[in-house]
Amino acid sequence: FESRLPHVGTTIFTVMSRLAHECGAINLSQGFPDFNAEDVLFERVAHWMRAGHNQYAPMGGVAPLREAIKQKISALYGAEYDAEAEITVTAGATQALFTAIAALVHPGDEVIVFEPVYDSYAPAIELQGGRVVRMQLTAPDYRPDWGAVAEAITPRTRMIMINSPHNPTATVWTAGDMARLAALTHGTGIVIVSDEVYEHIVFDGLRHESCARYPELAARSLIVSSFGKTYHITGWKVGYVVGPRELMAEFRKVHQFNVFTVNTPVQLALADYMADAARHEQLAAFYEAKRDFFRTALAGSRFELLPSSGTYFQLARYGAISDEADTAFVQRLTRETGVAAIPVSAFFADGRDERVIRFCFAKNEATLAAACERLRQV
Amino acid sequence: FESRLPHVGTTIFTVMSRLAHECGAINLSQGFPDFNAEDVLFERVAHWMRAGHNQYAPMGGVAPLREAIKQKISALYGAEYDAEAEITVTAGATQALFTAIAALVHPGDEVIVFEPVYDSYAPAIELQGGRVVRMQLTAPDYRPDWGAVAEAITPRTRMIMINSPHNPTATVWTAGDMARLAALTHGTGIVIVSDEVYEHIVFDGLRHESCARYPELAARSLIVSSFGKTYHITGWKVGYVVGPRELMAEFRKVHQFNVFTVNTPVQLALADYMADAARHEQLAAFYEAKRDFFRTALAGSRFELLPSSGTYFQLARYGAISDEADTAFVQRLTRETGVAAIPVSAFFADGRDERVIRFCFAKNEATLAAACERLRQV
Ligand SMILES: CSCCC(=O)C(=O)O
Ligand SMILES: CSCCC(=O)C(=O)O
Repeated sequence: FESRLPHVGTTIFTVMSRLAHECGAINLSQGFPDFNAEDVLFERVAHWMRAGHNQYAPMGGVAPLREAIKQKISALYGAEYDAEAEITVTAGATQALFTAIAALVHPGDEVIVFEPVYDSYAPAIELQGGRVVRMQLTAPDYRPDWGAVAEAITPRTRMIMINSPHNPTATVWTAGDMARLAALTHGTGIVIVSDEVYEHIVFDGLRHESCARYPELAARSLIVSSFGKTYHITGWKVGYVVGPRELMAEFRKVHQFNVFTVNTPVQLALADYMADAARHEQLAAFYEAKRDFFRTALAGSRFELLPSSGTYFQLARYGAISDEADTAFVQRLTRETGVAAIPVSAFFADGRDERVIRFCFAKNEATLAAACERLRQV
Repeated sequence: FESRLPHVGTTIFTVMSRLAHECGAINLSQGFPDFNAEDVLFERVAHWMRAGHNQYAPMGGVAPLREAIKQKISALYGAEYDAEAEITVTAGATQALFTAIAALVHPGDEVIVFEPVYDSYAPAIELQGGRVVRMQLTAPDYRPDWGAVAEAITPRTRMIMINSPHNPTATVWTAGDMARLAALTHGTGIVIVSDEVYEHIVFDGLRHESCARYPELAARSLIVSSFGKTYHITGWKVGYVVGPRELMAEFRKVHQFNVFTVNTPVQLALADYMADAARHEQLAAFYEAKRDFFRTALAGSRFELLPSSGTYFQLARYGAISDEADTAFVQRLTRETGVAAIPVSAFFADGRDERVIRFCFAKNEATLAAACERLRQV
């Protein structure tokens, strides 16, 4: 019995959340809020369920939600997508990424990713017979090396997967990065898959450089986002993908036979909820305050904090505390200190261990305060 | 730009539902109810949302729902599954089937399916580089030909996909069929993927022959079911898969990177709702009454009705009305008569046209009466 993914185990997020649960630890590992979304959103879901909107949505998503997504992207990034042909609602961003890869990567194609890389990308590529080409982002600034990318591009390069704000490094790409990416892929058939699930969470006055801002790039990009990260509902598993109609047509060929469509009353409720743009506009300030709170509370600890410019993650070096491998260190931290984190080696194919761990600060201040009190003792 | 699925267009369900909508026709094409689920189910969803259960569920599903599924299968089919390791909640049955194929079918493997076949199976297989081997079910009785299956099995046969009650033919496999399947696959490494989404909708005192009833078969089967069909919530997109732990481990390797997990408050609500077994036990009688109503109301028409022993579909021959191709006939029926149906040729790879169309009778009696009144005029 030959496995199709012989090297794949259980995702680190499941492993660490389970351990946190078993140990009764404060769970700063898997990225999700410990506060609730707003009642008004739940009321909208309840409304649409009671009103009888419980059967299949159209394959691309309900019209009002696609329209709301279109308006948001137009307002924020000045890009105009056709709601009918160029926007598809997905069962979360992970499903959008998986489907984009399945739809576009042929066996033998090369896909460039940036390491440390979110753990779903490589298995999804390998499952389709694609070859993962890994560019390194190196601590502490984790900037892409565009010279290296230029060298890595070959006639077999089918796709480049990017992710800004970046999980797990909490870095944000610049307009200069986008210009380099555009220049390197100009005139090629390379598709950009841009994971922008933290698009609304950038700090210190930085700007989110969506591919949608750059028409030449946008013309060959599938851009993926998530309602889970934006509206504090990671467990609802709703996201979306936008892109030019030829790419979207290929995406939908697979989407219709993968999940087909997404929870109808939830989609309708999200359309209502998106009408108030303040809900995503205020997100950056909301999380910036949490970042600052968390960093301040850890100031007296022996963790060395790296910069966090976006996402709701914070990297920390623990070399002053221990010379254990990061996987061993987070286990001990979970069991003995009562705080769970993610070992960054989980985002490297070779398990490279830079003695860095990732905390999630999408938590109530009380949770963060309690966690930091424990972490200061270490 | 080379498509990975060059021969795939838009699923027939989207095509016909869209046409029905455009024409204001009564939509008996895509399979979904036109009546609502129960308020008590919506109240449970609202409860769990307000109670703050809106973040990621465990990858395999929330514990109470897996436990409820386990109990149901034990009560109905006498099979004992481990809720932790052998049951996974999915974003609908289609996603479960797609993921099972992606996880188990290697390039070059052969997968046996029975035609007419649900339209998602073959593209999902072809996407993984698998070869689709088609067994014919022939009108009017659509029985499997086990001699032909025996001949079709080769050392490359990786999987046999079965579906009883069968969509679109509305036939139900017998204990004899299951015995033949067990005998043919005994001692082989062939995996059975059993699409049992209509498990609770069998008529005339027939019994649903779940793979779970047959320990020897169950030991190499992934069994897929759907809450959408059972609880009148096709638009919520929640299903599940059960199977032995080695198969489930492979399934989850892909599942965790495809959709990862499924709407948390919906899962918790379904667990509550499943506690009352009458809700699925009464389903057969509920739909049998609709079938009888529909058939009686069509008795005076020129459609020739084939038997319907399960599912909420009814096949009809229209040779006495027209000699058009079935795709042309359903278009005209939608536009001119105001009733949409599915052309059964859509379920054949070669588009074979047996002049048969499929109606969905999961509708209020008023809807069925109105549709039949129109259909009797044809
Ligand atoms: C799929 S669970 C992981 C959530 C997340 O995006 C993260 O923790 O990085
Ligand atoms: C994915 S929409 C199709 C619903 C259905 O199962 C059918 O109509 O056969």
